Parts: sequence; C-alpha cells; structure tokens
Amino acid sequence: MGKFDNHFQKAIEALHSEGRYRVFANLERRGAAFPLSWLYEGNTRREVVIWCSNDYLGMGKHPSVVQAMMDAAERIGVGAGGTRNISGTHLPIIELEGELADLHGKESALVFTSGYVSNIAGISTISKVLPDCIIFSDELNHASMIDGMRNSGAPKKIFRHNDVAHLKNLLSEVPLGRPKIIAFESVYSMDGDISPISDFCDLADEYNALTYIDEVHAVGMYGPRGGGIAEQEGLLDRIDVIEGTLAKAFGTLGGYITGSAALIDAVRSYAPSFIFTTALPRPVAAAATASIRHLKISTSEREGQQQAVAKLKKLLVMAGLPLMSSNTHIIPIFVGDAVQCKKASDRLLEKHNIYIQPINYPTVPKGTERLRITPTPHHTEHMILELCDALVETWETLSLPCDGVKHVVPMHQHVSLQPFPASGG
Amino acid sequence: MGKFDNHFQKAIEALHSEGRYRVFANLERRGAAFPLSWLYEGNTRREVVIWCSNDYLGMGKHPSVVQAMMDAAERIGVGAGGTRNISGTHLPIIELEGELADLHGKESALVFTSGYVSNIAGISTISKVLPDCIIFSDELNHASMIDGMRNSGAPKKIFRHNDVAHLKNLLSEVPLGRPKIIAFESVYSMDGDISPISDFCDLADEYNALTYIDEVHAVGMYGPRGGGIAEQEGLLDRIDVIEGTLAKAFGTLGGYITGSAALIDAVRSYAPSFIFTTALPRPVAAAATASIRHLKISTSEREGQQQAVAKLKKLLVMAGLPLMSSNTHIIPIFVGDAVQCKKASDRLLEKHNIYIQPINYPTVPKGTERLRITPTPHHTEHMILELCDALVETWETLSLPCDGVKHVVPMHQHVSLQPFPASGG
Repeated sequence: MGKFDNHFQKAIEALHSEGRYRVFANLERRGAAFPLSWLYEGNTRREVVIWCSNDYLGMGKHPSVVQAMMDAAERIGVGAGGTRNISGTHLPIIELEGELADLHGKESALVFTSGYVSNIAGISTISKVLPDCIIFSDELNHASMIDGMRNSGAPKKIFRHNDVAHLKNLLSEVPLGRPKIIAFESVYSMDGDISPISDFCDLADEYNALTYIDEVHAVGMYGPRGGGIAEQEGLLDRIDVIEGTLAKAFGTLGGYITGSAALIDAVRSYAPSFIFTTALPRPVAAAATASIRHLKISTSEREGQQQAVAKLKKLLVMAGLPLMSSNTHIIPIFVGDAVQCKKASDRLLEKHNIYIQPINYPTVPKGTERLRITPTPHHTEHMILELCDALVETWETLSLPCDGVKHVVPMHQHVSLQPFPASGG
Repeated sequence: MGKFDNHFQKAIEALHSEGRYRVFANLERRGAAFPLSWLYEGNTRREVVIWCSNDYLGMGKHPSVVQAMMDAAERIGVGAGGTRNISGTHLPIIELEGELADLHGKESALVFTSGYVSNIAGISTISKVLPDCIIFSDELNHASMIDGMRNSGAPKKIFRHNDVAHLKNLLSEVPLGRPKIIAFESVYSMDGDISPISDFCDLADEYNALTYIDEVHAVGMYGPRGGGIAEQEGLLDRIDVIEGTLAKAFGTLGGYITGSAALIDAVRSYAPSFIFTTALPRPVAAAATASIRHLKISTSEREGQQQAVAKLKKLLVMAGLPLMSSNTHIIPIFVGDAVQCKKASDRLLEKHNIYIQPINYPTVPKGTERLRITPTPHHTEHMILELCDALVETWETLSLPCDGVKHVVPMHQHVSLQPFPASGG
C-alpha cells in the first residue's frame, strides 16, 4: 500500500464501474509475419491477427527500415545522449528533417520524440510568438492539439466538426488585423472522415489566419509521394504548418512539424518541450528516413492498403454490419455501448483469434463506442474473409445492433480541457 | 516567406541580440570509439571529443545494449504500431516495466516516450486524483516538472532550493488533512548538488505529503544496483514516486515513473499524454532493459566514471579554474556571461577539438552562465589532461574570471510558467 492509495483506487474503481477500465493486450509482433502476432496471456501465448494497428502500411517490418535501424545501432550506438542543444544533434536527425521538409514542400522541419509533443510544442509556441493571437479549433481535434492550446494560454474558439460556415462565422467576429490560427486535422482517426482543407485555406486567406494541419493519420498513405491529404489535393503550398508522425504509416517513432524557416526556428528556440528533452536516437531517425524515402517512390504499399480497405468495406456492407461512413482507410463499426463493445472485442479475440481493441470514451463520445479496423497491405484476402465471418458471428451471438447510427456527429471532445476526470478510454 | 514570418523573425532576433541564439552542433558519434565523435560543418568533418554528453556511462555503445536493439529490430520490427491501449503494448515494454519496478523496489512502473512526458503525466495526474491537493516544489525543479504542475491546475508553493526549513514552514501553513505532494530532484543537473532527501521524507511523514523525486541524473549511476541516490542512501521505501529516464545513464530513450500499483494504474488510466501517444518501440525497450540489467550487476562503469570525475575535479582545482561546488559527476565551470560562455565553447571546439556546449539562460539564471562537463568512464587519462590544458589556454586567452562565484544560489527558474518569452538557452 502506498500513500493516498485509497484515492488512486477510487479513481480506478470509477472506470471499472463504467465498464471502461482498460486492459492492455500484451502482443509480440512476429516480425515479417505481421499482422500475425503472439498474444501473451500469463504463461501461454497464441497466434492472433492484429486488425487495429496504426502501422498502417506495415513499414515497421520493411527490410530497408529494419536494416537502417540495425546499421545505425551497430555503427553509431543506441541513444542520442543529450538534448538537441547539448550533444544530442546528429547526422541522421538532420537528414530526417531535410527529408521531411522536402516531403511537404516546406523550408524547414523539426523532429520531436512524439506527435503528441510536436503538437504541444508547435501550437503553444506559435501562438505565444504571435501577438494577441486567437486560435480556431475543430471540435474533434486530438488531445495533443488541445494540450498545445491550453499550454499556449491563447484564447480559442471551437468550431463544429468540419463546418466551414461555422468557422467563417467565428472568424468574422474577430478584427482582421489580429493574428489567427486555424487548427484542424486532415483525417480524423476515429471516424475516418476528411476535412475541407481547401475551404479552410480560403477562409485563412480571407481572415488573416495561419493554417495548422495535423496529418498524422495521412502521411505516408495519401498523395503521390505520401505527403498526405494536402499533397493529394494539391494544397501543400496553402498550408502554413503541417504536423505529422513517424510512428504510424512510417512505422517508427517520433513526430514533427514543417513550415517556413523562421517559424520552425522560433519553435526550435522557444519550446520547452523541445529544448529540455533528449533527442530521438540515431537508429530511430535512420529508420524513419529509410521509411519516408521508400514511400516517396514506392506506391505498392499504398495501393495494397487501398485494395484491402475497399474489399473489407464491400464485404461488411454486404454482410449488413453497421459500418460508419468513412472515406479513408479507417473502418469504424458502430456498437454504441461500452460494455457491449468490450464484449465484442473479447469474443473476437477469444473465439476467433482476431485482435481489435474496443474504442470507448474518452477516445470517442459515450454512446458511439465502436470497433475500429485498419487493414494493411499485408492482410490477405483469406484474413479479410475470416474477419468478416467472425464479425457476423459476434454480432449475432451478442445481438448487437446492425442498424446502428451510420454516421455520428460526436460531442465536443476537448476532454483534456475538463477538470478531472478527463481521461481514459 | 511564410505567413506572419515577421513575428517569428523578431522572436529569433531577440535571441541573437542577447547572444543566446543556439546553434546545434551536428555530431556523429563514432560507435565504440565514443566519446570520440565526428563534427560535421558543411561538407567537412573533423574528430572531436564530446565532454558534455548525458550518456553518462557510455551505455549507448555497450555491446549488449546495441545487440538487444538489433535483435529486437530483426526479430519483431521497428515501431510499436499503436498507443499502449490500441495494439502498442508488447512483451519488451512489459519486461522493461518489471525491471524498473524491481530497480526501485516499487510495486509497479510505467514507461513513457520521454522523461519530460513522464513528469507531465505523473505530476499532473497524481495531483488531479488527490482531492484538493497542493504541491510543494523546489525552485530549481526541471521544466518538465513545472509543466506537469501547470497542467495539473493544482495550487503550488515554491520552496527555496534544497531548503528544509523553508519547506517545513510552507507545509505547516496548510491543514494536515489536505493531501500534499513534495516534488524535487535528487541530483540537480546544472549545479550537480544533491537534495536532502531524508529530511524531505521526514517532513512528508509529519505533514501528510506524498514524495515525488526526479532521479533522471542519478539512475544507473548511484546506489549498489544503479537505483539512484535514494537507493544509495537507503531511502527507496520512503519515496512514493521515483521518476527516471532511460535516455541518460541507461543510454537509450524514454522516461518512467515507479510507485504503488494503485498510483501507477491511475496514471496509466487517466493521463492524456500517456493514453494518446504511440508506445516506445520494441527495440528501444529491449535495449533499455539490457542496459538496466547490466548496470544492476556491473559496477565497473560507475567506478570508472567516479574515478574520471575525481581526477578531473582535482586537476581543475589545481589549475585554478573556477569550479562550481558539486558533489556529483556533474562539473560546472563558472563563466557568468552568455557571450563569453559561447566564446569559450567556440574556442574549445575550434582550437582544441573539444566539444562542451555553453549553458545559458533559461537553462541557468542569467549571470551564472557556465560550461558543464560530464566525464564518462570512457574518457582516458590523456583526454582529461588535454581538456585541462585546453581550458587553461581558453581561460587565459579570453581573460575569463578565475575567481568567479564558486557556488551560485540561482534565481527562481520556473521559466515555463512565465508568459512568452519563456525560452531557449
């Protein structure tokens, strides 16, 4: 027993009572065999198929990426050994930043240890540098963006999800001369929908705003070179700051922002969460660079993924399962109840050896609990058919709704802004 | 030119005008030859000796650590592929957390992508769970701890650096029943002094407070098994939360907290900066575990480092250089001026091929600028002698003070609490 354990236990019990206490599945990916993986339960293990990985293209197992990490580890060593300023800047991270600036057609890039930190550092620093700045934020923006806004101390206005008219309305209420930031994502990770980027850019021009886009669920996967939705739609030059991750489609670890040389230099110089933390290790940076370079040229991973996504979506619709509307690689299936969602996930794992984590509050609003499926190019036709059968069996056995809400307009999700409990699904 | 670039440029110019614009040295560690390293300048490179690494024991190049990373990369792949909850928990990270709990004699441990994030998540979540909590914070606590306190929204009281009487005074002003946290570090990284841990624990018992210690500059290096200063002083069981890093003496990447099972579970369940971020990759976790296991048993690295530190301190004192008081492995030499400090660093690098980054505001208070030297067990006697000669030459050439302040009581350093500019040295 530790000091104040009664309080900590009470906080945990609150999650149990709501059916949303999270148990982490202990997985051991089987290297080149991914999405096959070992699931460890106590002293036993069994083979499962992972259907909810954010290693969207399986690049974490790509031979050139693995080799880049191994080579750098052997040749240079493991850790960075310091902050970027104090002995932690190294050739692989400089090369990585060059690669990222090129990917997004920007002057500069800056790498962080995670996408979460890149949003905290990016948003908070930019809004502190701009005098009397005000932020306009999509209501469904990720927790890390919300943390960045809170850190900044700048006033903010929340616009309804992807609602151009509402954003315009809010922008028009603020004097033109006052610096503004419009912060939004390209692909929203729990619904799989895409924002109206071009319209937001028009508004930014009209109302003197900087555009800050989070492309973490799109980089590597969309656009001819994997530059994201902004590249796909030919809008790279209209976005001021593109934030991305190295930990999803690029299969490694870390986050980044790209933008003008002056903006990036200001974040580099003023963000405590960048300054006072150890740099990304050389082997991780080298692996990320190898992954980006590969995906700039190779399109087979993107095509393979898109084919798997299309196949699965078609089968799910044919089977009458409650597929939520999505025009991306993210396939949410509606359940609408935390306990049932967990039960469905448990049954898939126990009976069918299929691992899909239940998605509950606060990751999504209560009443919109779902299973979220992310096919990779490495899921075979056979796996896709098996998944579909397993879902049908699970839906029938648990009597889950098949006519559930097809598209949900979620609640205001700024969970981390709320007083405790602001927490844990 | 990007939008609002004039504002970003102005922020950068402010740093130039104060002589504290930071230029990152681009280094390529030479694997097993570390602390020897290549310094890249444009298209040329030359060999330098790194004297300011936080890879304090050189574990980043240890064969067992390098091998563990390579094996895991080859066998399992590079990235984690998801948050801890959504497909990102894996066997190596579970093993790592077990290893850390054992290292500090605690029930549980939780790993984060950095020490910075571990402090944000740890301090903010604990103080949110404890009802009506109030935090008592040493004035020199690290930026990440300050960020955690700010995130928590809990009221805080700042006590003078390592001042037991002042802390007691502040504690006595708050009702006994009200939950309290005493947050402090064991080794302060820029001065190298050690806090009165035992006295703080006595006060915690007396005034109903939880003790939260940051041991990032001590883990791996102090105590019979590398458990830090708390282990060395036999105080592990009196500390409620021990926070540490895998990125300094353990030579890899990541941060962690250890404590009671209930406390760790609460942080795991409620901290947005833990929940909504990708897990540490398997190869990094495996490398960290190898490093911790090695340093639990092997003492040669600690002994080698302590010998190098003792030798260098002795030589510096004999040479009449203004060594600031330090009873640890951190050796600060007083300069007291940002521009002179940068000049000294530049001269060491250009003339002597010695790399020691200048330490300026806001890392240390203005007027206490310094060079901060961290000997490793891999710095040879010859390197130590060369360093001493080079420092003497530099001090003479630049007419730097030799009778500078030997021990500085620094100003209130809670830089990130201040409005912009809260920034960059």
